[in-house]
Amino acid sequence: MNILIKNVDVIISGSEQNIIRNGNIGIQGDTILFVNAGGNTPPGFNPDKVIDGKNRLAMPGLVNAHTHSSMTLLRNFADDLALEEWLFNRIIPLEAKLGPEDIYWGTMLAIAEMIKSGTTCFADMYLHMDEVARAVLESGIRANISKGPLVSNLRGKPGISVDSEGCMEYFKTWNNQGNGRIKTCVEIHSVYLYDEMSLREAAELAKKLNAGIHIHVLETEAERNNSIRMYGMNPAEACLEFGIFDVPVIAAHCVHLSDSDMEILKSRNVNAVHNPGSNLKLGSGIARVPDMLDRGINVCLGTDGAASNNNLNMFEEMHLAALLHKGVQCNPTLMNAKQVLKMATANGASALGFGDDTGYIDEGMKADIILLDIDKPHLCPVNNPISAVVYSAQGSDVDTVIINGEVVMENRKLLTIDEEKVKYKVKEIAARLSGLR
Amino acid sequence: MNILIKNVDVIISGSEQNIIRNGNIGIQGDTILFVNAGGNTPPGFNPDKVIDGKNRLAMPGLVNAHTHSSMTLLRNFADDLALEEWLFNRIIPLEAKLGPEDIYWGTMLAIAEMIKSGTTCFADMYLHMDEVARAVLESGIRANISKGPLVSNLRGKPGISVDSEGCMEYFKTWNNQGNGRIKTCVEIHSVYLYDEMSLREAAELAKKLNAGIHIHVLETEAERNNSIRMYGMNPAEACLEFGIFDVPVIAAHCVHLSDSDMEILKSRNVNAVHNPGSNLKLGSGIARVPDMLDRGINVCLGTDGAASNNNLNMFEEMHLAALLHKGVQCNPTLMNAKQVLKMATANGASALGFGDDTGYIDEGMKADIILLDIDKPHLCPVNNPISAVVYSAQGSDVDTVIINGEVVMENRKLLTIDEEKVKYKVKEIAARLSGLR
Repeated sequence: MNILIKNVDVIISGSEQNIIRNGNIGIQGDTILFVNAGGNTPPGFNPDKVIDGKNRLAMPGLVNAHTHSSMTLLRNFADDLALEEWLFNRIIPLEAKLGPEDIYWGTMLAIAEMIKSGTTCFADMYLHMDEVARAVLESGIRANISKGPLVSNLRGKPGISVDSEGCMEYFKTWNNQGNGRIKTCVEIHSVYLYDEMSLREAAELAKKLNAGIHIHVLETEAERNNSIRMYGMNPAEACLEFGIFDVPVIAAHCVHLSDSDMEILKSRNVNAVHNPGSNLKLGSGIARVPDMLDRGINVCLGTDGAASNNNLNMFEEMHLAALLHKGVQCNPTLMNAKQVLKMATANGASALGFGDDTGYIDEGMKADIILLDIDKPHLCPVNNPISAVVYSAQGSDVDTVIINGEVVMENRKLLTIDEEKVKYKVKEIAARLSGLR
Repeated sequence: MNILIKNVDVIISGSEQNIIRNGNIGIQGDTILFVNAGGNTPPGFNPDKVIDGKNRLAMPGLVNAHTHSSMTLLRNFADDLALEEWLFNRIIPLEAKLGPEDIYWGTMLAIAEMIKSGTTCFADMYLHMDEVARAVLESGIRANISKGPLVSNLRGKPGISVDSEGCMEYFKTWNNQGNGRIKTCVEIHSVYLYDEMSLREAAELAKKLNAGIHIHVLETEAERNNSIRMYGMNPAEACLEFGIFDVPVIAAHCVHLSDSDMEILKSRNVNAVHNPGSNLKLGSGIARVPDMLDRGINVCLGTDGAASNNNLNMFEEMHLAALLHKGVQCNPTLMNAKQVLKMATANGASALGFGDDTGYIDEGMKADIILLDIDKPHLCPVNNPISAVVYSAQGSDVDTVIINGEVVMENRKLLTIDEEKVKYKVKEIAARLSGLR
């Protein structure tokens, strides 16, 4: 389908303050054919659909670079608790009760929430990942989904089992499906759940598949101590040593990095995901994001799962990321709005393996575009559109979402997801889980 | 008018986890006549209007305990700058161009934004306060509005002038207007703009008027140093010494309080306003809120002005307040959702002088009630309603707002404000200010 968005203000990217006023965006199939500052559309371009951009702001879709999407099912079940109580006594016992169908509906709810708050691409790591892939395929969203060959005793199973074949099968089945919307990678939950041999084996598998790895790195101080006890090395050093950093890596959290850990990440081009909402809520600490950015590390943004956030709203994560470090370091010039927007778009796209053709709005890029309704008191006067997006906007300001050239939401109505059915199913599951508490 | 809200889940207050499921709320005139857990309405109660509470959550209206409402006009004009550059080179030169009509429209926009994000009461301190009072009166919102007798050289005027008579006149004109929706108090901007004699004079005026004082206290470290240089005392000590703390006080920010400063605040029952968004954004630092709460200080929440936030969304402030201190102190049990909700409701109502009959939902209280639409993916499943409000909700989830028994918003349509006209006027003003930059 050909789509013309006309008379619209456009934030091209966060990488430079490149704003087009009253421009046009032309989309042909899954690709942006042109972006111009108004005037005529190119000869021969016949749109099947015209979207009026009046009072709208177009910008690249947001990239949620680390989540466990179907943890939406556990939203607001347990809050304000110490980490161990929360994880081991509340969350894990509930997770043990989740079957594949539950994961499907939880993921669908997550995707509905993400699209409704402007996220067009996400990275997922959780259970029953075939169901996650199915939900991604059906909903039209873009995603990097991971499958782990390693199963530890975290969830009550003895020892560590390795399922390389299952992982290869997953990769074969899902990688590049959905017209390239799906990329798969290898999940290694963290270094602390396994042992050296299994970690090396998982890293080898990623190399063999030519795939990346999605892993939690240094979320807590305890993680550092455990790793040193287990391996004589902290998690960043262990990842380097065991070959995990030999492939493209999505490293979630990165809260407790030392200077030398940052040097390791930078030297291997590891992508760091900042999850401010979750890190604050769980009391994990505050990642040294300005230091990472100064070193040229590709830092992106994520929500983590809804059980520790408790939503999947990237506007809130941008807001937190922009405010937090200024306050902690008493320096209002840190983490400016452009940097934060870039973290939430181009940096995330790059980390998830979609950086070649998504993350900003330009000719030849895939059409992952969101439109914000800016005709609202809290966005009046707009003045600086990038500041407005990072400091003033809410997720609910997103009015229209286009992913890979397909309109998946228009006037806040989801077009590829039966929202009522999804909410109904999730409420059923939550009622069952409540009964089990 | 008599209003019945039926079949609604109700958060009674943040002070205890007191939730009524599928209850009814009856409103007679400006007052809550009954709240019950379902069943029949009392005999003789004939509602003129019935609101269906299905998929709605009723809760007390939010109280924004410190803002400069018409700074909405300066939203997103200047961000990510050092404080002095921001304030002296960007904001103050623009403020000098603002006339009474500008303030009126800027305040109207602020009130529109606040009502649309669930705020039913606010405390204001700024310029041309008669215009603010006019906007409050017309819009139906509740407010504590301050008028300063002291004018310093901050805005380019020489010396300090004292206008006690103007202040008394303001008090006489506006206090208790709007069926008691308006309370007035004395503004003292801060201790660092004036001298001891004028501060003592302003404090005396407040006593004479039997009024409270709204003042900035220890927003920055520089403020402490300046005060010590000027008075040989820090601002909290100076307030105590000069009689400012002899009356009920709304003390904004309170970022840099020492232990002994907290003892001063506690001993005089000073109300402290936590403004996390603004404090972070301006790099002012992080207030020791858990310590203040431990000492029994009444801490409430505020947005500060939209020029340093950049919105007036109390859901965002609750979210920030609940997350920030957990992360900074690496303790996820701090600032639980109930505490934060109480800060944003009952504590604020008390600080602003409306605590006797607003701040929670109960028989005999004034009807300041908001309804959230909870039938949304990001609020599904709700599980714990108070966690949902503090961690998951957005300002835009507010569907209906009742203030002093009057429905001022229904289905997100403002009923007492011409939203289109307000936005139009503000855009005109902003265009004029842009030209002046």
